Amino acid sequence: MADPVTLKDVAAAAGVHVSTASRALNPETRSVVNVDTAGRVLEVAERLGYRPHPLARGLRTNRTLTIGMVVPDLMNPLFPPIYAGADAVLGDLGYSVLVSSDDDDPAKGRSVVVALMERRVDGLILANAHRDLVIPTRHSKVPTVLVNRSSASNEFPAIVGDDHAGVGLVVGHLVGLGHTAIAHVAGSQDLSTGLARRQAFVEWTNREGLDGHPELIVEAGAFRTEEGRAACDRLLDSGENFTAIVAANDLIALGCYDALAQRGISVPGDVSVTGYNDMTFVDRVAPPLTTVAVPYQEMGGAAAGQLLDLLVGEVGAGAPYPPTRLAPELVVRESTAPPPEAKRS
Amino acid sequence: MADPVTLKDVAAAAGVHVSTASRALNPETRSVVNVDTAGRVLEVAERLGYRPHPLARGLRTNRTLTIGMVVPDLMNPLFPPIYAGADAVLGDLGYSVLVSSDDDDPAKGRSVVVALMERRVDGLILANAHRDLVIPTRHSKVPTVLVNRSSASNEFPAIVGDDHAGVGLVVGHLVGLGHTAIAHVAGSQDLSTGLARRQAFVEWTNREGLDGHPELIVEAGAFRTEEGRAACDRLLDSGENFTAIVAANDLIALGCYDALAQRGISVPGDVSVTGYNDMTFVDRVAPPLTTVAVPYQEMGGAAAGQLLDLLVGEVGAGAPYPPTRLAPELVVRESTAPPPEAKRS
Repeated sequence: MADPVTLKDVAAAAGVHVSTASRALNPETRSVVNVDTAGRVLEVAERLGYRPHPLARGLRTNRTLTIGMVVPDLMNPLFPPIYAGADAVLGDLGYSVLVSSDDDDPAKGRSVVVALMERRVDGLILANAHRDLVIPTRHSKVPTVLVNRSSASNEFPAIVGDDHAGVGLVVGHLVGLGHTAIAHVAGSQDLSTGLARRQAFVEWTNREGLDGHPELIVEAGAFRTEEGRAACDRLLDSGENFTAIVAANDLIALGCYDALAQRGISVPGDVSVTGYNDMTFVDRVAPPLTTVAVPYQEMGGAAAGQLLDLLVGEVGAGAPYPPTRLAPELVVRESTAPPPEAKRS
Repeated sequence: MADPVTLKDVAAAAGVHVSTASRALNPETRSVVNVDTAGRVLEVAERLGYRPHPLARGLRTNRTLTIGMVVPDLMNPLFPPIYAGADAVLGDLGYSVLVSSDDDDPAKGRSVVVALMERRVDGLILANAHRDLVIPTRHSKVPTVLVNRSSASNEFPAIVGDDHAGVGLVVGHLVGLGHTAIAHVAGSQDLSTGLARRQAFVEWTNREGLDGHPELIVEAGAFRTEEGRAACDRLLDSGENFTAIVAANDLIALGCYDALAQRGISVPGDVSVTGYNDMTFVDRVAPPLTTVAVPYQEMGGAAAGQLLDLLVGEVGAGAPYPPTRLAPELVVRESTAPPPEAKRS
């Protein structure tokens, strides 16, 4: 009896990377692959009689078929889709993906990573967000991919959302509506996304020629509703004039809703508010939130694909790896409108 | 130098189970412990100079300090709090909790459990919901606790929400408002919660002496918004008269909102709707949803406490274990009101 056809055989016959073949063969990730390529992979798989389960032969021996994943907080609704995206790709190849939270605590993050390495996982997908996290895999040989964060030195492959582009989408949308005084309620500056979105806000508002009062930027202590509300209160107390708020994420935006409502300020009649992430149900709050949709599930799938590349050795120790940035999408709902001045004119 | 004081020492000196001591010492779980007991544990811990980290000596040797957890779907917002509750209790003792989804697929569930056992986790916390799941730990010696589900034979300790009481709370609330024609949009009957809530609905409406048309119960294919909407459409198409809907969970309730809105039926003016779970943001949808809050985080903490009992051998192989049922709470918001007839009278 002939050896079973492997994923690597299919990839080779179709002339694509094994990760591309994996994505093309998985209905949940197929959409990230060029349509012609996906069609070719499916045709080749059919012709060779490929069956997903017997694992790709290129994988190292002594594998445990487990992948470890660390996220800052599973209660934050953006991380479960990253896990689900990675699990969909890796599960089809017989891997179990084991995930753990580090509660944004670098010490706990290290301890979880060590526990996973002791359990001899074949690879790691790390979404821990703390910027100064020392990654204990640095001197180990466990293939590691970062997701939703990158490392300054690009020593690991990383799949991230394009925060610069995403903030550009909301700033452009608000400027298009006629806003010229736009405030930013920033997220925690200890987290890479908080920092990146704030920097992007400054760059895009400068590029649009807007007056950049430093007082128009306030920082929420954390990416949470309560902190967003408190930061928005400080912004309102400052007496600065503004007609729109770019919030660093949806939770902070909902906190702004609360602070504005308490003072009788209408959204979007008096002040427009935008979020970031397009969390479940922000289409159902009052008013439905204009926000930026980040393809978190796709991000998880792409991270899994990168990890497969490392596992089959098709990508060498070729650091630095420039991060792969996935494009976000603007979702316009009812929390944004022209500023009151523009309506009057 | 004296041996470090262990959790078990503290528990013994305070005259409580080690799991109770663990819960009392953890600020996140302290509230589940009787106030006097918690005070005594804290006092004893202080007096003995207890420090959380060196692990309880009663634990078996060769431990890996990892606990495996399996949930049906991490994207379902009720499971992350169960994980977080368990992780808070176990993390304080130096354990890492590794969680994986089985996508409600019994075959995947078995494969994940096997992977965790091969990784030699010290214990398992299983929330897989499929009623006919064959648990591969049955003949193994890995200490196992069920959470948010129980097994028919009670062969494992289980921490569950009290669905019977929870459905009683909403039925009682609606009857108190004057409703006599109450419909139920049930969840999947393959899942223990779907089955239990439907049975509870039948029992409570009978007990209240309501007319129990079988047509007033429709089944959503899954605990999801889309399926809830489709099931509510079938209910509306049936021509049955009803003034309130008890939905089997919040997502199904939101699906009912959609189906009712599309036909111009007002909530709660024409029809009251209740949910189950009190998911994040259902207080912010229009109208804010009356629902049942289930203490999922506490449930995870209690499951971790039970597992600690098994790990230190304080609970023998004393099956059957009657499930521990945690009391839910009714949360009244704006989706329920007296029925239109009652208003007119």
